Order: sequence, then structure tokens, then C-alpha cells
Amino acid sequence: MSDARHGYLVKPDPRDPRLTERVRGLDQTGAPIETVVTVERALTIFLNAQEIVTAMTINDYPEYLAIGYLLNQNMLRHDDVVTGVDYDAELGVVVVRTERATDYEEKLKKKVQTSGCAQGTVFGDLMEVLDDVSLPKTEFRTSWLYALTQSINTTPSLYLEAGAIHGCVLARQDRPLVYMEDVGRHNAVDKIAGWMFREKVRPEDKIFYTTGRLTSEMVIKTVRMGIPILVSRSGFTAWGVELARKANLTLIGRARGKRFVALAGLDRIVFDQDLAYVEEESAGHRRKAAVHDD
Amino acid sequence: MSDARHGYLVKPDPRDPRLTERVRGLDQTGAPIETVVTVERALTIFLNAQEIVTAMTINDYPEYLAIGYLLNQNMLRHDDVVTGVDYDAELGVVVVRTERATDYEEKLKKKVQTSGCAQGTVFGDLMEVLDDVSLPKTEFRTSWLYALTQSINTTPSLYLEAGAIHGCVLARQDRPLVYMEDVGRHNAVDKIAGWMFREKVRPEDKIFYTTGRLTSEMVIKTVRMGIPILVSRSGFTAWGVELARKANLTLIGRARGKRFVALAGLDRIVFDQDLAYVEEESAGHRRKAAVHDD
Repeated sequence: MSDARHGYLVKPDPRDPRLTERVRGLDQTGAPIETVVTVERALTIFLNAQEIVTAMTINDYPEYLAIGYLLNQNMLRHDDVVTGVDYDAELGVVVVRTERATDYEEKLKKKVQTSGCAQGTVFGDLMEVLDDVSLPKTEFRTSWLYALTQSINTTPSLYLEAGAIHGCVLARQDRPLVYMEDVGRHNAVDKIAGWMFREKVRPEDKIFYTTGRLTSEMVIKTVRMGIPILVSRSGFTAWGVELARKANLTLIGRARGKRFVALAGLDRIVFDQDLAYVEEESAGHRRKAAVHDD
Repeated sequence: MSDARHGYLVKPDPRDPRLTERVRGLDQTGAPIETVVTVERALTIFLNAQEIVTAMTINDYPEYLAIGYLLNQNMLRHDDVVTGVDYDAELGVVVVRTERATDYEEKLKKKVQTSGCAQGTVFGDLMEVLDDVSLPKTEFRTSWLYALTQSINTTPSLYLEAGAIHGCVLARQDRPLVYMEDVGRHNAVDKIAGWMFREKVRPEDKIFYTTGRLTSEMVIKTVRMGIPILVSRSGFTAWGVELARKANLTLIGRARGKRFVALAGLDRIVFDQDLAYVEEESAGHRRKAAVHDD
């Protein structure tokens, strides 16, 4: 697939030797085989002097991951000035430095009491997010959806190479712009948020595509990023649907081949695609899709 | 599918009205549709007087989830005496009471500093686990694998009903015993651990099947449970493979239709199945499998 066709600004590099490992084993016949598996590494994120979290990641974009994680945890504000990001590959540590003095000692304590998981913070700030953000009245053409999924499914990726990885794509109309992958549950999302912050990219006219489920947490992160449209090849949870409706986020799931289901923000959708020209997913792609499990 | 055929002790009840919700939306043609989505609820787990975590769960087995979570976080020991488990459906709170006085204030603080997520604890205690547990020299017949996956794939489940959910099965030889599902990433595993603790079930002769990826965290939980064989229809991460080899856990992934790949604990595997009698996965099942994404 040529860049010209996909027009990506950032896309996976499945040939990066740091991201996969060849391992030996046996197949179903008992025959020795060699296969490729994804590498996960621990990356510890600091905000100024404070250690915040250790994430498991393929670690291809530690700077974007660190900034995006802090943004999506509401520890970094969109108007914050990042004075520097230092990454130490030896130690597996990345430090984000801001002009504003930060102290999340209390917030981190609170997180334990509410959840023990990053999710706790997300839910703690939920109302805040839904109050602050008002998503724009854009349109979403179904012809864009089919062009996007066709491009994404045929883009060389770690997922096609080794499987067991999540993918997220930031797109505008029918053009995928940034394709991030990661083993970590939300790292791919956070890397895109970090990229948008660093590149000063506006969210209003963007579309967010994920291979993952449309849970409350995924909806909250998308709303927090200010992106009005969230698309997934996977399914929904009831709370995800409820929150998307509250935030007026356009929520499209089970997008595979011809099919999709839209459960929120329906007014943005323009059904301009003649379905007679859309192919069903090939068995080959379906089979690969099954490897996306987490 | 009859219970006689599957012989489950615990299995999903997709007709339980508390677990799914009917929602209205549009399909790809713009036609109004009604579909079923999985319900996720917040459940706050207390150990004695201490609030430990709030998990997002379908909440079908709050007692098993609470006990299993505490076991897998090493906050409850296998020799602990549970004097009571109180569940308040109104408040969404479950309290596990033990004979032994517990205090994880320090541990919870440490968790924040290492990870901010339950994973932090898991990795904190990693070496401990691999040192404590020595997995038994059992055998695993490939004929059991095909019988199990055939049973599991045809068992009525929330996954077949609504998708966007994970499934885990505890099995013995070719017989699935306990099939748990959940929206939460590791809740299905924890519910099985809780069931094993309550029912005093020994792990040595068991097989653990998951729809999820074979990550380091999944491997650690299985080793901690003392189960020698871990099977998934999904893929591997490099660290998952490395830890499985250290712990001598039999690790089998990408188990779909005829195919599978074994990357650790190979000495337990007995290749007794004539593959001529195994069917490839149907397109129908592959298509459904894609909904397992997270």
C-alpha cells in the first residue's frame, strides 16, 4: 500500500525490529515453527518531579504516549506549555516538564480510593468532561466510513504482522491521518492525543476509529479529546452508549464490511454510500480480525 | 446445546434481563433498528474495613469477583478464612470479611507509585509468584483442545447475544466446568478464581481458556491460580511468552479451527488428535469472533 494512497502522516512500521520478536514453538501438527510476537515494555511516566504511572507499551512513541496519557487523565491541560520531554531508553522513563507547577499527590491518592486503576480518575472527572466539552455539529458521510475502513484494513501493521495488538486511527473525512498501535489497552488512544497536542491539531473536523470496544471509558476519552465521531469494528456497552448520547458523540460500532450500527449522535450521519458498491469483509480479514481480542 | 453435552457447573445466562439492554439506533441503510448491548456496572470491593477498588462489571457474580480479585491481587491468601461476604445491590458494594486482620494501606499507596493500575500490584509481586508456584507435570491432549473449543464456541452466551465481552472457561480434560463472561478486562478471570476458592477446587488438573490475549498479566494470573495450561483463541505478547517459559506454563494461542500455536510448556502436549476430523472455523464463527475485540 503506498503512502500516496493512504496519505498517512504517521503510520505503523511493522519492520521496526524493536517492536516484534521471533519465537520458536510447535504448531497443531507438533511441527516446530517460528512465529512473530509483539514486544511489550514498561514505560514510567513522570510529570515534572512526580512519578505518575508505569504503562506497558510497544514504546514506539514514548513522548506522545506520556503527553497523551497526562492529557487524558486531566493532569495536563490543553493550554499547558510543555517546556521539555526527556526520554531515557535505558531506564524506560519519560519526563514531561511544564511551565505550570503541578502536584497530583492528592489526585493519585484519590485514584486508589475510587478505583486503583486509571479508570478511577476518568470516572472521577466524568461530569467535568461532559460539562466542559460541547461537540461541534459536523457531518459524517457513510462513504467516508467505507473508504476509511478499506484503507485501515489494508495498511501494513503490527496487527497484520503479529496480532494481539490494538489499533486507533485519527482521520479527516475519508483520509486516515495517524495510525497508532499498542498492546496497552488505551496507549494507542493516548499516543494519538499526544500527537494532536504536539502538532497543535484541531479535533472538530476529525474522526476517531478504534479496533476496541465502545465502552464508557473509550467514549469519555474521545469526548475529552473533543472529537465528535467515534467508530469501531467492535461492539458497544450500555454505559458507553448512554454517555455518547449525553455528550452528543456520534457512536458507530460493529463496522465490518457493509454493516455498521449507529447508536448515538445520529443527526451527523449522511447516508451517501451506495451499498451495492461496498464489499463484505473477506474471510481472510475476518480471520485476522479475531486476533484483535484483548 | 444441552447441559448434558456441555456438563457446565456454571455457565452464562444470556437471558438474564439484568445483563443486557435493548437500544434503538440506525443500521448502514439508515433504517431504524433495535439491538442488544451489554450492561456494565460499577462494583466497589471492600476487604474488611478497607475500600480496595471499583471495578466495571456485568455484576452477575459480585461475590466471586470480589474474592477472585483479592486473591489475584495477593491481598487474600489461599489459606485465608473468609468469615462472610456481604453484597449490597443498591450501593453496588461488596465486602469480603476475613478471620485474619488485613491492612493494605501501604500496598495501595505503592500501587500508585508503581503503576496507578491494578497491573502495578501484579508486577510488584511478580517474582514472588514465580518463586512460590511450581506447576505440576500434567498432560494436555490436543483432542481435549478441539472438544473444548467446539463446546465453548457453541455455548449460548452474552457474547453470542450482544458481543463486546470477554469469556474465560475453566476446564478439566475435554470438559468445560465454569464459563464466566465480563466486560471488565480481567473480571472473568477473577470470577473463576473466586469460584475455585469458594468451591475448594484444586487447580492442578485444570485447563484455563480465555478469549483474550496472552499478555504477561494473563500469564501471571494463571500461574498465581496454579493452573498449568493456558489456552487462547487470541495472540501472544513477547513478555507473556517469556514469563510462561520461566513458570513452565503450557501456553497455547491462536487456537481457531484446526490451527493453534504452542510457545511454552511444550512437554505437556500430547498430539493425539487426527486433524482430518477437525473442522476449520465457520465464517459465521469467525465473524462473531471479531466482536471479541477490546
